Amino acid sequence: MRNEPRSGCPINAAVESLGDPWSVVVLRDIIFGGRRHFRELLSGSEEGIASNVLSSRLKSFVAGGLLVREEAVRGQRARYSLTEAGIQTLPVLVALGSWGRVNRPTTPELTVRQQLLEDGGPELVAELMDELRHLHLGAPPVTGTGPSVMQRLQEAYESLQ
Amino acid sequence: MRNEPRSGCPINAAVESLGDPWSVVVLRDIIFGGRRHFRELLSGSEEGIASNVLSSRLKSFVAGGLLVREEAVRGQRARYSLTEAGIQTLPVLVALGSWGRVNRPTTPELTVRQQLLEDGGPELVAELMDELRHLHLGAPPVTGTGPSVMQRLQEAYESLQ
Repeated sequence: MRNEPRSGCPINAAVESLGDPWSVVVLRDIIFGGRRHFRELLSGSEEGIASNVLSSRLKSFVAGGLLVREEAVRGQRARYSLTEAGIQTLPVLVALGSWGRVNRPTTPELTVRQQLLEDGGPELVAELMDELRHLHLGAPPVTGTGPSVMQRLQEAYESLQ
Repeated sequence: MRNEPRSGCPINAAVESLGDPWSVVVLRDIIFGGRRHFRELLSGSEEGIASNVLSSRLKSFVAGGLLVREEAVRGQRARYSLTEAGIQTLPVLVALGSWGRVNRPTTPELTVRQQLLEDGGPELVAELMDELRHLHLGAPPVTGTGPSVMQRLQEAYESLQ
């Protein structure tokens, strides 16, 4: 990623940071799949991302301030965490998913979470961002009644497997 | 663009269609800049898009059903129009711009339209999509009082030049 965007336009600045299609699916898998380790991201990829592509995208996100890489400690693998800027990409992913759901071929089991997020509107997206702040930034847990947004998405996804 | 996405996920399907950063800025210039001809898109590019890159992105959008190329008639250049799928990328561009505005370096004159769209919320975005349907799809004009959304954005932009 370039440090200084090619222009002062916020749309251009965003796409320069988010980059290509592979970058976005890596972010998606970290956010919705809860995958924090290189191996999980590689083996779980629905699109079959290549090892070198995954590696370069993770490095680029760390350099660009969307991810933090927590160094491996004894017996544990390095773990990636979203930064606040990374968490704030969630509305972009939802907008992309909304477009893809209507305009491209998709499958029900990989669309149900998108549908739930759209139905819930910006409030549900904001709630999920707060849950991500707890999981990735160590912010206090979101206190609410009933299952978390992440659990509800996961249950809807599993009900179609 | 591949015809069949690599997976059934709507986010992946969207980024496969919208492609790389250059594709998105071309869409942006057609939507917000009202640039419908190759030469305008090339010479007006804030980011200095290269001629061959612009050409390949336009072809890819036509193949992917986001743009229609109206064949050149005597003495006129070929003109590009957004399809309904192309118009529906507007909320994605707004979400991208929203992220870029907060998380990346930008300039006031290229951010003011983004700010207006965010302030107006989904209703203003929907109104602008209706205006685009009139301009690109030949739908009936949007009847309202006062200047169009497009005019308001343009005035805000020009006030900072």
